[in-house]
Amino acid sequence: MRWIGIDPGLRTTGFGVIDVEGQKLTYVASGTIESGDPAKGLPDRLGTLYQGVKEVLDTYHPESAAIEEVFLNVNPRSTLMLGQARGAVIAALVSASLPVSEFSALRVKQAIVGTGRAAKPQVQEMVKRLLRLSRAPGSDASDALGVAICAAHHAQIPQAITSALASRKRKR
Amino acid sequence: MRWIGIDPGLRTTGFGVIDVEGQKLTYVASGTIESGDPAKGLPDRLGTLYQGVKEVLDTYHPESAAIEEVFLNVNPRSTLMLGQARGAVIAALVSASLPVSEFSALRVKQAIVGTGRAAKPQVQEMVKRLLRLSRAPGSDASDALGVAICAAHHAQIPQAITSALASRKRKR
Repeated sequence: MRWIGIDPGLRTTGFGVIDVEGQKLTYVASGTIESGDPAKGLPDRLGTLYQGVKEVLDTYHPESAAIEEVFLNVNPRSTLMLGQARGAVIAALVSASLPVSEFSALRVKQAIVGTGRAAKPQVQEMVKRLLRLSRAPGSDASDALGVAICAAHHAQIPQAITSALASRKRKR
Repeated sequence: MRWIGIDPGLRTTGFGVIDVEGQKLTYVASGTIESGDPAKGLPDRLGTLYQGVKEVLDTYHPESAAIEEVFLNVNPRSTLMLGQARGAVIAALVSASLPVSEFSALRVKQAIVGTGRAAKPQVQEMVKRLLRLSRAPGSDASDALGVAICAAHHAQIPQAITSALASRKRKR
């Protein structure tokens, strides 16, 4: 199963692609999509994000997507900008018929580091270890890989329950 | 020139399509796109809006788009939801290679009614008159038609200046 994780942002959107086979996680790709010069205007920048996500999907063909939930910024203008970026990114994912799940930063940190209060460098370090990378990707790409890993774990919980129930049935 | 105007919203997005020939405005179509049951989850609802806008574009083939700017709601959660809807709608417009301009509700009201303090029913009434309709479309569709009319007026201002300058040159 190939997952794409997304850390949405108007200026920079991070993406991370991983393959999941049972408990084994394999790094495929990660990076950032830049919306470019603010002077281009919002529709143009949202179009760049949308197109960038489409290109990543066309290149790596993930089967499922996960995106970080937006936390409400104290600045309502920032919340609005981030919301619009997230809307354009989700449109790109859904228009490619990908199922999209959402995870809060708290849940991602809990899944990766074990505590929701983990700092960014801890998340980067754990993403690096879990994917056996020689160096940690940049912060936005690491966050996106973290979302993908969290989603993959989460998807395995019902699977794990199903197989546990099946093995119990077999034992009876 | 065919314009589409959009009044974005997560629950309901209004659209209005008009043809503009010099000073003449002709109504083409208007309506609403509903994102459906909130229980479906945000990505699904944004996908419905995105797809709905795509279908309207495929049906009416506008050449230019205009969208209402979002005002910052006192409730940051509402601002975020509206922002995401607007992002998905802009993604649909830009991915169809449409130029997208943005207008505040204030500017739309000024263009349609002559004052930024106009009430909704006044906008509806003026949209009805300007497009010679027998009855006013619903509130969201009227707002969207208002955005399209405002954008068409706005696009004509530089044109009007250009032709005024050209006629001055001819006179010299």
